Amino acid sequence: MTSEQRRARRVTLLDVAREAEVSRATASLVIRKSPLVADETRRRVEAAMDRLGYVYNMGAAGMRAARSNTVGVIVPNLANPFFAEMLAGIEQALEGAGMVVVLANSREAPANQETILRRMRERGVDGVILCPVAGTRPALLGKAAGWKLPVVQALRHVSESECDYAGVDYAGGMRQAVEHLRALGHRSIAFGTGGPVHSAYRERLAGFCAAMEARGLDPGVTIELPVAPPFPPEAARRLIDHPARPTAAICFSDVMAACLANSFADAGVAVGAGFSIVGFDDLAVAEMARPRLTSVATFPGEVGEAAARLLLSRLESPERGDRRLISLTRLVARDSTAAAPARD
Amino acid sequence: MTSEQRRARRVTLLDVAREAEVSRATASLVIRKSPLVADETRRRVEAAMDRLGYVYNMGAAGMRAARSNTVGVIVPNLANPFFAEMLAGIEQALEGAGMVVVLANSREAPANQETILRRMRERGVDGVILCPVAGTRPALLGKAAGWKLPVVQALRHVSESECDYAGVDYAGGMRQAVEHLRALGHRSIAFGTGGPVHSAYRERLAGFCAAMEARGLDPGVTIELPVAPPFPPEAARRLIDHPARPTAAICFSDVMAACLANSFADAGVAVGAGFSIVGFDDLAVAEMARPRLTSVATFPGEVGEAAARLLLSRLESPERGDRRLISLTRLVARDSTAAAPARD
Repeated sequence: MTSEQRRARRVTLLDVAREAEVSRATASLVIRKSPLVADETRRRVEAAMDRLGYVYNMGAAGMRAARSNTVGVIVPNLANPFFAEMLAGIEQALEGAGMVVVLANSREAPANQETILRRMRERGVDGVILCPVAGTRPALLGKAAGWKLPVVQALRHVSESECDYAGVDYAGGMRQAVEHLRALGHRSIAFGTGGPVHSAYRERLAGFCAAMEARGLDPGVTIELPVAPPFPPEAARRLIDHPARPTAAICFSDVMAACLANSFADAGVAVGAGFSIVGFDDLAVAEMARPRLTSVATFPGEVGEAAARLLLSRLESPERGDRRLISLTRLVARDSTAAAPARD
Repeated sequence: MTSEQRRARRVTLLDVAREAEVSRATASLVIRKSPLVADETRRRVEAAMDRLGYVYNMGAAGMRAARSNTVGVIVPNLANPFFAEMLAGIEQALEGAGMVVVLANSREAPANQETILRRMRERGVDGVILCPVAGTRPALLGKAAGWKLPVVQALRHVSESECDYAGVDYAGGMRQAVEHLRALGHRSIAFGTGGPVHSAYRERLAGFCAAMEARGLDPGVTIELPVAPPFPPEAARRLIDHPARPTAAICFSDVMAACLANSFADAGVAVGAGFSIVGFDDLAVAEMARPRLTSVATFPGEVGEAAARLLLSRLESPERGDRRLISLTRLVARDSTAAAPARD
């Protein structure tokens, strides 16, 4: 197409995208002044608009969009800092795209969650970011699909669901934790777990078992712990007296790890030198606990941001295939892990 | 009025309220199935409706209301569990009243806050619950009043503002902390502070000074601390070497208290027996820290709930006078405070 031909008809956004060698979705993000576009890309698209004399058709955009520019966010437990961090990431990304968050707390109850989703639909949200509660039926996502309500799952996902998902490589995180302890000479490693059974729970547990077995270690030493204080004072004692004589434990969360560490201190066993403990998620408590906790960082704020991006791209391209963004973890070594004590 | 006369004209909500001996606002909450009404009151109002043959006029209610049933909530720092707890309380109360939360995070920046408030107005929220950032100009609230946008302040308030406010008796909390330490024999008590200067900051600091002076103690020993980890390792050293030889410290927040306690432990001084520390807010970290922190509970979830109630009552009665709900604190004694060590 020559530039004369181009001017003969109205220049479209697709023309701009082709000229700038980006996708139509990216060009659209530039127009909507989304912060999700790299500066260099933005400059390229803006230059292409100038060259082609592109005029943004506000009316048509409004028509096509007919959007409320609101996004529903359903979290299972607002008082848990893990979800507050995810929410902060979502809010930041959506705010940058000129959208607002409509928030609801499902309190880990499937019935609440279903009511909330229905109400959000009635209110005309453009889409929903959902961290599904344990026991969510896959049919719920089917229902949303029937409503043409885009849903992105975050941090947890409903099994068998066909749906966008921004999550964490929990299994990889468990491998890092097991490898860290193995390198320190630990062979009998317990797993501290508890709380509702959802995909993140299953993936952490399965990841621990797989990582242990891959190294020829027994994954059978587990201890059930509450998800929040107060903790049973005998928690450490159960591990100290365990016939497998574990020298370390990996916990499902930082809160569990911090509380288990306290239980060991109460039992007169020094955490670090005497018994090693690894937390999971690397929330602020890991840095504040004493000894400071070795933990596997899962970056919930960044996962929230990724979920928001998936939803924005879904709104831009309703027909695109489902995507899964799995963010990798990082082991942060601190003082709660040390070389395994010599055993007779 | 006889029951014949009553039936001669349409029974109004005010009639129901009088019959049930409650306010019109309360009767209205019963109709809207608000969870904020005590069961006994609800039964009384429902019985009065039955007796009078009251029929809820949906059309009129819809006309008068013309509401979006959305409430904007602006928090200064979503990643801080203190605000996440407040948000959970707001969300729970509003959800029960059939309203949804539109959330925004001002990130402690006045410019963000102003943009957010303007956008929320454009989006037609029915009202806003605002925890104002440090440096908020009173003119901002005047602007909202000019827009006829109801605003309730929560946890912090802008000085000189005429506006509903749900807050905490921070000064009372500081009195409890000082009294607790004084009863344990402490006379030289330091104050650990830091972060942005807003009303909650000023009230905590002024409350500490007033409580000390009322007992003839010197409030002049202060230490500036960061609001989040990592902490300067020499924090404890600065108090240990202080000429006033403080034997205890009251901190602005639990996080500061936990980090200061760690700093003392690093310096080889036992917190509790050797040096007493009191936190503020009584978040989960107080129970998890070792030693477990004595702290002043401020119940941010309940303050959020109170703020939501103030907003609901404002929507019901736009012309009522401004109200302030100040929630009282409670000292929770744990292991970080003990009798003052004997001094030569």
